[in-house]
Amino acid sequence: MNYPNAIKKKQTTLTREPSFSNRGMLLENELNISNEYYRSIDKAYIYKKPTPIKITNVDYPSRNKAVITKAYFTVPSTTDYNGIYKGKYIDFEAKETKSTTSFALENIHEHQIEHLKNIYRHQGISFIIVRFSTLNKTYLLMTKDLIEFISTEKRKSIPLSYFEEKAYLIKDGYTPRLDYLKIIDQIGGI
Amino acid sequence: MNYPNAIKKKQTTLTREPSFSNRGMLLENELNISNEYYRSIDKAYIYKKPTPIKITNVDYPSRNKAVITKAYFTVPSTTDYNGIYKGKYIDFEAKETKSTTSFALENIHEHQIEHLKNIYRHQGISFIIVRFSTLNKTYLLMTKDLIEFISTEKRKSIPLSYFEEKAYLIKDGYTPRLDYLKIIDQIGGI
Repeated sequence: MNYPNAIKKKQTTLTREPSFSNRGMLLENELNISNEYYRSIDKAYIYKKPTPIKITNVDYPSRNKAVITKAYFTVPSTTDYNGIYKGKYIDFEAKETKSTTSFALENIHEHQIEHLKNIYRHQGISFIIVRFSTLNKTYLLMTKDLIEFISTEKRKSIPLSYFEEKAYLIKDGYTPRLDYLKIIDQIGGI
Repeated sequence: MNYPNAIKKKQTTLTREPSFSNRGMLLENELNISNEYYRSIDKAYIYKKPTPIKITNVDYPSRNKAVITKAYFTVPSTTDYNGIYKGKYIDFEAKETKSTTSFALENIHEHQIEHLKNIYRHQGISFIIVRFSTLNKTYLLMTKDLIEFISTEKRKSIPLSYFEEKAYLIKDGYTPRLDYLKIIDQIGGI
């Protein structure tokens, strides 16, 4: 394992309860170090995809040295994270919200939701991870339950109560930081 | 399906044999339209990952409009393509070589080979696709056979004869352009 010192120091709290000091660590960062941990113990190989961009200009100030001088962020076709766990395909999107009452669906692009549905239909393990950062609570909602909400509710945001009822709370931990695969094991998703 | 016209026109050859007109289409492009075809018939969901870059400067010339003005290409941690096929995780790297005799292993980063090995150990479907562009021949070599070559040979390049013996020739087609999943089906990789 090769955790940056700064991150390691932040984690040396004895309590496993959500604490103020944890709040500064972004969800993406926590997922990255969790995935790094899973790889280090040979449990799963899950990576964050690079940010999709459209490159329009590249300079070559010297031989073998390319510098991108103009590029634009593009809308992702798929989710941010995917990989393999116990031979199966695993795929998810992770988002944070400051809201204390609901998660706006506009935070996830429509074709990302389509993508999650496709993975679900093809027997992959797929879900969204949503952190209510103000509440310091991180939930894992299986695509099945995401689809159910979208197909039965007209609301454009998923209320916290739906997460409390259908999703799984991911507890803060030390190694890994966010043990989301433990939930997949427990619910028999694999 | 939504193929760009330019690409579609190039494909309207009646012969399925390798022809000169096909040579201009890059392997990456052919794989992308093949994957698009697989998605359109709901067969598999396989995508090319975005090119990994390190962004060092972003300008905001107007509200909600970000322009990346400085970024660098970074070494990829994983392979270029991954996704789901029949519930299983599938992962591969694709490369072209102009050589008519061998494929230099330096074309694949060492940690990409490590990644392929990890996927293989975890029961994913993993392989490399290598096109000998001068010969207009495209091979699929399973990671198992790639590992065997690396662990038993001291050579830094895989001779064409090894591909002829161990790999599978992917025939040019119309839909999909490169039906590599047919090979996976045939060899019982799934």
